[in-house]
Amino acid sequence: MHASPLFTRLLITGGLALLQLSSAAHADEIKRTSAPGSKAPISSTVSVPAASRIVFFSGNLADVANPAAPQGSVEAYGNTATQVTSILKKFEKLLAAEGLTLADVVKVNVFMVGDPALGGKMDFAGLNAAYSQYFGSAAQPNKPVRTALQVAALPMPGGLVEIEMTAAKPAP
Amino acid sequence: MHASPLFTRLLITGGLALLQLSSAAHADEIKRTSAPGSKAPISSTVSVPAASRIVFFSGNLADVANPAAPQGSVEAYGNTATQVTSILKKFEKLLAAEGLTLADVVKVNVFMVGDPALGGKMDFAGLNAAYSQYFGSAAQPNKPVRTALQVAALPMPGGLVEIEMTAAKPAP
Amino acid sequence: MHASPLFTRLLITGGLALLQLSSAAHADEIKRTSAPGSKAPISSTVSVPAASRIVFFSGNLADVANPAAPQGSVEAYGNTATQVTSILKKFEKLLAAEGLTLADVVKVNVFMVGDPALGGKMDFAGLNAAYSQYFGSAAQPNKPVRTALQVAALPMPGGLVEIEMTAAKPAP
Repeated sequence: MHASPLFTRLLITGGLALLQLSSAAHADEIKRTSAPGSKAPISSTVSVPAASRIVFFSGNLADVANPAAPQGSVEAYGNTATQVTSILKKFEKLLAAEGLTLADVVKVNVFMVGDPALGGKMDFAGLNAAYSQYFGSAAQPNKPVRTALQVAALPMPGGLVEIEMTAAKPAP
Repeated sequence: MHASPLFTRLLITGGLALLQLSSAAHADEIKRTSAPGSKAPISSTVSVPAASRIVFFSGNLADVANPAAPQGSVEAYGNTATQVTSILKKFEKLLAAEGLTLADVVKVNVFMVGDPALGGKMDFAGLNAAYSQYFGSAAQPNKPVRTALQVAALPMPGGLVEIEMTAAKPAP
Repeated sequence: MHASPLFTRLLITGGLALLQLSSAAHADEIKRTSAPGSKAPISSTVSVPAASRIVFFSGNLADVANPAAPQGSVEAYGNTATQVTSILKKFEKLLAAEGLTLADVVKVNVFMVGDPALGGKMDFAGLNAAYSQYFGSAAQPNKPVRTALQVAALPMPGGLVEIEMTAAKPAP
């Protein structure tokens, strides 16, 4: 016995409805916009579609770069660019453990303290020099939204910068 | 040949299951609560239902308000209220490009620096005076959650305030 | 008349597709990872599955602990540990009103100011002493990601700490 055309039609309709629902939930991708002409390694907006997994990360500080330097000194951790590189390499490992990469990061918050070598001002240029090797580069063009500013103190003596981030991945 | 009652019933059941799934995923709305009696233009909580699009925005600073004033001075950008208004107008445009409005904003972070005109204290009253024209007003009653505090420095000389936000929109 | 095997098979297939869709959207749980050997009451990462409700909370300050102390003094609100406890108890109530508990919190940001009793340094040990009674304890083992640092000023005189959080709950 064969399926009647009516039943077949109803089942196909049901199947299409399922496909549409699935499409509505899963087809979208993360969309990033930048200010026209901006060279900053940041997006203006990052839109995360419904039905995305969101992964939050604790703020991270740099690892010791120079064990010979006095403990808790800036020399032990290096300048801002060195510390940013150390922190972003940490995040690469943390992201990998979640099946993610820096390309999946949607939001970054950077908290800097005054750099003694710059008269107590934050080293914004040093941040961007290191940061743009990892975000908005030829190898990894995706740029998260970002807020970067100077706070009064970080919980680690010698630390010049702490970075916090959020990643997202649309459900497959 | 006609559809048998059994098949029709099964198909209808399947259709209802689809509708329920769709409803569970899409029917909810964003819910905002405020502290009883509070006049602050902020919500205590904002609950974003599952299956919502979430849009992250970079921190934004004010545009120059007075081009005749010295570059990088507070006079160039105006007082805190003027700067907040400038920033929120920027966000209105950024939100519009995402098909959103200030009514869709769910979370705001405000980072201020000390105002020289206030002995180095942040101008919290100036923030709220401008802010409440855009959030919790008669024209736009929705209030995001908010944290507002004073940091050590912002990346733009003359800037008194930087604002970061997140918006959300339940899937239709 | 009985359902033909073909139709039955098609309907079952459709039913399984529905179940799988539902499973993909709802089965996952929030996953938390910690740095190996770390005693800090924080997670390194918290992964929130697609189709989760996300609840944002405004930054909260402590309630007055000692009404006999001068208004706006640190004595009125107590030391950092006392203030953290006061704030987390507030959050317990705010969470309960959303049908949530501290176990559902995924992300915490702690903003401290210098403690006069510590020569103007933030009381990080005081934060953790109180905080670890509520997060990562035997009674409530879940630990959110966290960033904790010192800012220049909070909007409440006498306040030593402000806490902001985000909670999430996978759709049932």
